[in-house]
Amino acid sequence: MNKHPFDIATQIRLLDDGRFRGTTSPAYANMAGPFGGFTAAILMRAVIEHPERTANPVAFTVNFCAALKDGNFNITVKLQRSAKYTQHWSLELEQNGIVCATATMICGARADVFSHQSGEPPQAPPPEACEEMKTAGALNWLSRYKFRTVDGTIEFSSKPHSEPKSPRNIHWVSDHPERPLDYLSLAAIADTFILRLLYVRGTIAPMGTVSMTTYFHTTGEELARQGSEPLLGVATAERFHGNFHDQSMTLWGKDNLLLASGTQLVWYKA
Amino acid sequence: MNKHPFDIATQIRLLDDGRFRGTTSPAYANMAGPFGGFTAAILMRAVIEHPERTANPVAFTVNFCAALKDGNFNITVKLQRSAKYTQHWSLELEQNGIVCATATMICGARADVFSHQSGEPPQAPPPEACEEMKTAGALNWLSRYKFRTVDGTIEFSSKPHSEPKSPRNIHWVSDHPERPLDYLSLAAIADTFILRLLYVRGTIAPMGTVSMTTYFHTTGEELARQGSEPLLGVATAERFHGNFHDQSMTLWGKDNLLLASGTQLVWYKA
Repeated sequence: MNKHPFDIATQIRLLDDGRFRGTTSPAYANMAGPFGGFTAAILMRAVIEHPERTANPVAFTVNFCAALKDGNFNITVKLQRSAKYTQHWSLELEQNGIVCATATMICGARADVFSHQSGEPPQAPPPEACEEMKTAGALNWLSRYKFRTVDGTIEFSSKPHSEPKSPRNIHWVSDHPERPLDYLSLAAIADTFILRLLYVRGTIAPMGTVSMTTYFHTTGEELARQGSEPLLGVATAERFHGNFHDQSMTLWGKDNLLLASGTQLVWYKA
Repeated sequence: MNKHPFDIATQIRLLDDGRFRGTTSPAYANMAGPFGGFTAAILMRAVIEHPERTANPVAFTVNFCAALKDGNFNITVKLQRSAKYTQHWSLELEQNGIVCATATMICGARADVFSHQSGEPPQAPPPEACEEMKTAGALNWLSRYKFRTVDGTIEFSSKPHSEPKSPRNIHWVSDHPERPLDYLSLAAIADTFILRLLYVRGTIAPMGTVSMTTYFHTTGEELARQGSEPLLGVATAERFHGNFHDQSMTLWGKDNLLLASGTQLVWYKA
């Protein structure tokens, strides 16, 4: 079987000095440099492939410090603390002497304890009944996902909407081509929600995520059951002020289970 | 004027090796070791007092790696990247050779650009009309805050509720004694929302926050206008599964402005 573009793009190799080497990929190119979800996933892979890892990711924060240029970069992984229930990791991604991203990840041992989901996904028609977002000719990374609109679309405009529109949207999302879901792809999909400023204003502006935090609520068994079926994604935002806005997202899988939730802080100038 | 207990507790001093020295305080003691909000605030102070800082905090993630014991600890601060619009900081808190917490903070330059608040606070009677939570005799740190219930309380029980209750609560919160709000106190107040498992189950269990992310939506001018007036806080959770649950919170100030929002991942065994 051929390797999926995601797995080709997020390959890393161990260097003699203990760091990992990664390379940007045209398949996941964004406006300038790679899609942030690629960066998140390749950072996560450096932990996933680490010989001292004992459990799966539960919490993951990535900070985007500087634009990553096309080419090679190095990842430093540090196991800060390894205990019975959790492992704490710190990561740095460096290119040409500049720290382009930092990250912290917590892996956590899971057991069969009290389980309860208080949140509920929104009502949505099945994926097949929802219109597919056209991504051909747009940014490369958008073509690596299939989006099907449930509610809320960006209404592009030549000038900002006179009244800000809703920052909320709901869609089905899956890897394209299909790929069985794992923590790596979930970490990337967590960043596929287009920046909320576009929904609210309708115009392109200088903007970019500065920090992203994702929590993984799912176990490996649930991921296996999800396979390559689309996830139901919901994203919104609360406040746009003084060059920064938040946004939050939830990703729902089979049986209405919440697989991941997360927040971003976005810089903008508009 | 006497110093506020918060400012006494979160004092730090610069060591010869460039690290900062802090000390736990009985005033903010939790079940074992200090209240997490104290740890967050003292970590933030190490950036706030750093001579190279050029802007105020916008995003802050604290990871709790190991229990902090009463006594001294050391904070290492690293400026990872300083650019025109943002500064990225990484922090480590170490005690007796163990990394007890790590953190990343982003400071961001603010300007008078597009401003819009899409989120709204819940309806609530004024603080004076809400019943004050009794905290005397409970954990020390709880007495450092005044909580006034708007909606949702913990219904303690000798055994877990047969049907899980709502994880959501709304309350007014302020420093006690009063203290003008700043980023430091806001970082601590972000952690004053009691762990949601208690709301849902009603019973004490081994539990603790492993990671906390807070976004600051407010400018210094808004903080000055807020002064020491209570904030309206809302917290909820989505999923409790396999030893971890999320929780999210928003903190609203005067004129219905969102001052901060955040998420936590909590470990539990129940």
